[in-house]
Amino acid sequence: MADAALFEFLHTEMVAELWAHDPDPSPGGQKTSLSVLKGMGFRVGQALGERLPRETLAFREELDILKFLCKDLWVAVFQKQMDSLRTNHQGTYVLQDNSFPLLVRMASGLQYLEEAPKFLAFTCGLLRGTLSTLGIKSLVTASVAALPACKFQVVIQKA
Amino acid sequence: MADAALFEFLHTEMVAELWAHDPDPSPGGQKTSLSVLKGMGFRVGQALGERLPRETLAFREELDILKFLCKDLWVAVFQKQMDSLRTNHQGTYVLQDNSFPLLVRMASGLQYLEEAPKFLAFTCGLLRGTLSTLGIKSLVTASVAALPACKFQVVIQKA
Repeated sequence: MADAALFEFLHTEMVAELWAHDPDPSPGGQKTSLSVLKGMGFRVGQALGERLPRETLAFREELDILKFLCKDLWVAVFQKQMDSLRTNHQGTYVLQDNSFPLLVRMASGLQYLEEAPKFLAFTCGLLRGTLSTLGIKSLVTASVAALPACKFQVVIQKA
Repeated sequence: MADAALFEFLHTEMVAELWAHDPDPSPGGQKTSLSVLKGMGFRVGQALGERLPRETLAFREELDILKFLCKDLWVAVFQKQMDSLRTNHQGTYVLQDNSFPLLVRMASGLQYLEEAPKFLAFTCGLLRGTLSTLGIKSLVTASVAALPACKFQVVIQKA
C-alpha cells in the first residue's frame, strides 16, 4: 500500500521541516510549530469530513459520530480502526490506538516520550476538524503512556 | 477514495503553510520555499522508491525505469497513470500529465500560471528522489502551458 506510506512519509517530512526551520527553539517556539501542525490537521480534517461517506450513516447521536471517527476516518487515514472508545456519557470521549501508525517508527523507550507531541498534533487537529464539519465543536488532546500506544481525549463543547 | 484526497489536502496545506510563514516574500524567498518543497519531495520519493514493488520488474534499461515512474509511482501517488512519455534517446525524458491532480483544483486562466510552480515543486523532488533510490541521478523540472496539464522534464546525469 504505497499511498498509506505516502501519508506517513509526508507527515514525517512536515514535522521535520517545521522543527528544522523553527526560528525559536524555546518551548514557546515549539508551541508555535505544534499549533501550525494542529491548524493543518484541522483544515485537512474539515476537508476530509466533507468527502467521507457520511451520507450512508444516520448520525442520530454524538456517540455515532465518535464511532464514525474511530472506524471510517481512521481507516481512511491510517488503514486501521481505533482500538477502543470510552465515554463518561457527559461529552468526554477517550479514543485509544494501541499502535498508532505515526508513532510506530519511533524507537520505544521513555527517553523518546518527549518527542511524541510533535507526532500527535496534526492528528489532534484532524479529529477536531472532522468533528467541526460534522457540526460538533470540541477540544482534542493526546497523551502517550507507552509507545506506540496513545489516547486522544475529545471534549465536546456544548453551545 | 479518502486517502487519495488526504495526500492532496495535505499537500495543499503544506504549500499554504510554507508561503504563509515565508519570512521573505521576494523572489529569493520564494526560491527557498520551492527548494524546501523539492527537498521534502525528494526524501518522500526516496522512501517510496524503497516500498514500491519494483522487485516484480526487471529494470534492464533506463527507459524501463521511467516507465515504472509513469505507471507504478504515479498510480501509487495520484491514482492514475501519466499520459505520455517521450524521450530523445539521449537521457532526456518528457513526462506529460494532461490533468495533473495537484493542479486540477486551481482555476484555469493565464493569470494563475504564475502560481503553478508551488504546486509542482514537491512532485519534481518526488521524481528525483524515486530515481535516486533506483540508482539514477537526475535533474527534474516542470512546466505548465495550459492548466491543469503539465510536463516534467527528467534529464539523466551520467556518471
